[in-house]
Amino acid sequence: MGKEGKGNFQLKTPKGTRDWSGTDVVLREQIFTTITNVFKRHGGVTIDTPVFELKETLTGKYGEDSKLIYDLADQGGEITSLRYDLTVPFARFCAQNAVQNIKRYHIAKVYRRDQPAMTKGRMREFYQCDFDIAGQFDPMLPDAEILRIVKEVFEELPEWKGKFTIKINHRKILDGIFQICGVPEDKIRTISSAVDKLDKSPWEEVRREMVEDKGLDPEVADKIWTYAQLKGGKDVVEKLQAMPEVVANESAKQGLENMAMLCDYLEIFDVMPSLSVDMSLARGLDYYTGVIYEVVTEGSAPSAAAKDVAKKEKKQKKSTDPDEDRSNDPTIGVGSVAAGGRYDELVGMFSGKPIPCVGISFGVDRIFSITKARLGTAQAIRPTEVDVFIMAFGGGKDFTGMLPERMAVAKQLWDAGIKAEYLWKTKPKLQNQFKAAENGKVPWAIILGDDELKAGKIKIKEMGLPDGHPEKDGVMVEKANLVEEIKARLSGKASLPDRTAA
Amino acid sequence: MGKEGKGNFQLKTPKGTRDWSGTDVVLREQIFTTITNVFKRHGGVTIDTPVFELKETLTGKYGEDSKLIYDLADQGGEITSLRYDLTVPFARFCAQNAVQNIKRYHIAKVYRRDQPAMTKGRMREFYQCDFDIAGQFDPMLPDAEILRIVKEVFEELPEWKGKFTIKINHRKILDGIFQICGVPEDKIRTISSAVDKLDKSPWEEVRREMVEDKGLDPEVADKIWTYAQLKGGKDVVEKLQAMPEVVANESAKQGLENMAMLCDYLEIFDVMPSLSVDMSLARGLDYYTGVIYEVVTEGSAPSAAAKDVAKKEKKQKKSTDPDEDRSNDPTIGVGSVAAGGRYDELVGMFSGKPIPCVGISFGVDRIFSITKARLGTAQAIRPTEVDVFIMAFGGGKDFTGMLPERMAVAKQLWDAGIKAEYLWKTKPKLQNQFKAAENGKVPWAIILGDDELKAGKIKIKEMGLPDGHPEKDGVMVEKANLVEEIKARLSGKASLPDRTAA
Repeated sequence: MGKEGKGNFQLKTPKGTRDWSGTDVVLREQIFTTITNVFKRHGGVTIDTPVFELKETLTGKYGEDSKLIYDLADQGGEITSLRYDLTVPFARFCAQNAVQNIKRYHIAKVYRRDQPAMTKGRMREFYQCDFDIAGQFDPMLPDAEILRIVKEVFEELPEWKGKFTIKINHRKILDGIFQICGVPEDKIRTISSAVDKLDKSPWEEVRREMVEDKGLDPEVADKIWTYAQLKGGKDVVEKLQAMPEVVANESAKQGLENMAMLCDYLEIFDVMPSLSVDMSLARGLDYYTGVIYEVVTEGSAPSAAAKDVAKKEKKQKKSTDPDEDRSNDPTIGVGSVAAGGRYDELVGMFSGKPIPCVGISFGVDRIFSITKARLGTAQAIRPTEVDVFIMAFGGGKDFTGMLPERMAVAKQLWDAGIKAEYLWKTKPKLQNQFKAAENGKVPWAIILGDDELKAGKIKIKEMGLPDGHPEKDGVMVEKANLVEEIKARLSGKASLPDRTAA
Repeated sequence: MGKEGKGNFQLKTPKGTRDWSGTDVVLREQIFTTITNVFKRHGGVTIDTPVFELKETLTGKYGEDSKLIYDLADQGGEITSLRYDLTVPFARFCAQNAVQNIKRYHIAKVYRRDQPAMTKGRMREFYQCDFDIAGQFDPMLPDAEILRIVKEVFEELPEWKGKFTIKINHRKILDGIFQICGVPEDKIRTISSAVDKLDKSPWEEVRREMVEDKGLDPEVADKIWTYAQLKGGKDVVEKLQAMPEVVANESAKQGLENMAMLCDYLEIFDVMPSLSVDMSLARGLDYYTGVIYEVVTEGSAPSAAAKDVAKKEKKQKKSTDPDEDRSNDPTIGVGSVAAGGRYDELVGMFSGKPIPCVGISFGVDRIFSITKARLGTAQAIRPTEVDVFIMAFGGGKDFTGMLPERMAVAKQLWDAGIKAEYLWKTKPKLQNQFKAAENGKVPWAIILGDDELKAGKIKIKEMGLPDGHPEKDGVMVEKANLVEEIKARLSGKASLPDRTAA
């Protein structure tokens, strides 16, 4: 972040926020478009809610993390806060409008006063990209649709196909297992949170937390571990269904029936190869009531190095400046890249009338960072979409610059919907015009010359052709046919050989 | 706005904000797309800045309106405020990154703690849609480009072609005229603000304000009026250039030369028919230094009724509840629908190094309200983009619902990128499936039947065909060719007659 000040004025964005520009924003828009196309393919409609909500709307929804909520100043009138996620505003929207059913997507920024870690993509302002289904339907059908959406998104994002795993579990199975192991009812949520750390910490550490910090009987902890290690495909469900103590528990039995049905549906949808049924997945948030899932990828799952740092952080916790983030190491995994689950009670917290919901949230900023790294420098992203740069050829003291002529050609192209630019100089040098076209990676040039124009001709030149190419110097076309000639080239139907992709 | 509460809990969005959903959000997205396409046609790149800025970034930029800035609570750390517009963040971005030149567009929400007037589209959270050009170029060329963009946007928006006027003036001409009339130097900005009210108030009222409130010599005021009435095309520029006292003033002379050059360029770009050179246009903001313009339309210019209300408001000002908006009358004009100008000094306020800038801001919420009213109920906006609804035909106690078959067809269509839905019921009634397809205005149905499937056949039916149409009951196709058959129909290339637009 550049900091140039005038006097003692700070020229920067607020902590934990950043500007997006250049090819970064082009790539991010491509990611949004890919995801939005999948959402629309499944009948998604978008809604837009305010960036701030009444504070009481957010109160009591996020547990401990409520301390991360940004409040607006009390300037008279209502007390409001910036949204922390898109799920609670969605639930408020459903309750307020007595929505019966909706498939809604929402791509927007959310706000958390957390310790930023720029290199890991952890920011105070970041995008979420959510798809949720609200309504009463036959079991597991919306859940299957969400997981199919997850598969389509990651198969269609550049450099993600075959590089992601959807970890899945079910709160009812988990709760059942905790009951079977003998976890006291009032400790289920906190023990569940401990289990959820198994992707970041070794069992010994999680066990210590359960026993020492949370006062769990060591035998109960060890019993949990026998189940928590189970992971695989539908076989995990079948294995658990074959255990008499498990199916004797009503919650586990129901959850497993759900999961078996879901696996059958996901078989039809060809999602099973990407799925890992994982008994160590628990998810932090309180409001989940059914299936829970998160998507991990190479480089997103925390590494051994991350575990070390996490340990160190824990030890140093009390002595450290809270304004400094010690895990600001780009080699460390960024956690899950998408996560969600079923939450049947949240809307009821607002209206008293629960509406079953299931959804997914894509962490677009994390997806962006990983995609960018995978694309590497090989990827030449065009900074603009301009297809044609209009130039004047000439020099010497008789050179007029042909400004009105260039403007007239620009108008003609714009009228035809063609993206075109020209240099805002009355007498531009030819090399500066070429430089501008090259900087913008513009694929085509139109070159006006006095003599040619008098003869009703205009030159079209493909940029970036190698030396020796027969059309390196461009081809002359009739001025009267200019728009058609350009359109044919842009659609790849011209007599010119197809230009190689920029 | 629905208000359903659970207990004394308020189920609403904060004052002056609203949710966007249904066909409203579809129409708004269409407006965004139209505008974005024009921006990209002119080489625009987008940037994304944080929704809040350091408070000091916004300080001293908005004059009196600074009181409308939303502050975030001081929760430790930096003092920040929600952005008030997109222009100041853009200037901060240019200064911080030492940008030499950029054509940037930005579509995002801005925040003002103003009195909301929902029916007029005046909200506390609303979208702005800006295009700005920063950089040193030959005179009036970026200015001409911006005005061409304005023309393209309003010609391409539905129901706007031929229904808008771009009012234009130049700060240097205005300042020159004020000097000629004898306005004291220190009163120029405040007298300029008074002139700007001439679109809302009659001359007598503006004159009274100048003389009584602002202490201007009545003769000076009357002299201003002789110039302020001038409006028309390039003839206004020529008329002023023919007045010896005007061209004797250096500021007016320069401004008129600029305007004459601009008119020549806009002639080439075919923008002149939409332009009104208007000496009563002054624009409120301090930071403009060159051309200024705003776009008005039927129904956006304040009406006589609005003037009456404005007068009454003025009289009642002291006695009224500040929480109530008395001009909340939808028949009253909404003001300009786009506005902008040249501001060559703003970036320099941040970095000390001025970069010339010129830009336009489209008031998308106002444009939305007017477009929606013009389209009326005739416009059938599809709530989703789903093209195919997959149904099972059957009934009675042997009816299986064909859920796996419907899911398999859905998967096949999704794999091919086709937007498709099916009902999330194991045994849905045919009429409920049709109802769902009709509610979604889905144009095509695929209907599965047991016997047909066994014979390798599937029925495709166009929705909404009139009784008696030969294909009212659909046509049978080979299951093996389903994707091709659907794609041909969606691209309008099938043997079936083209479906009428939804």
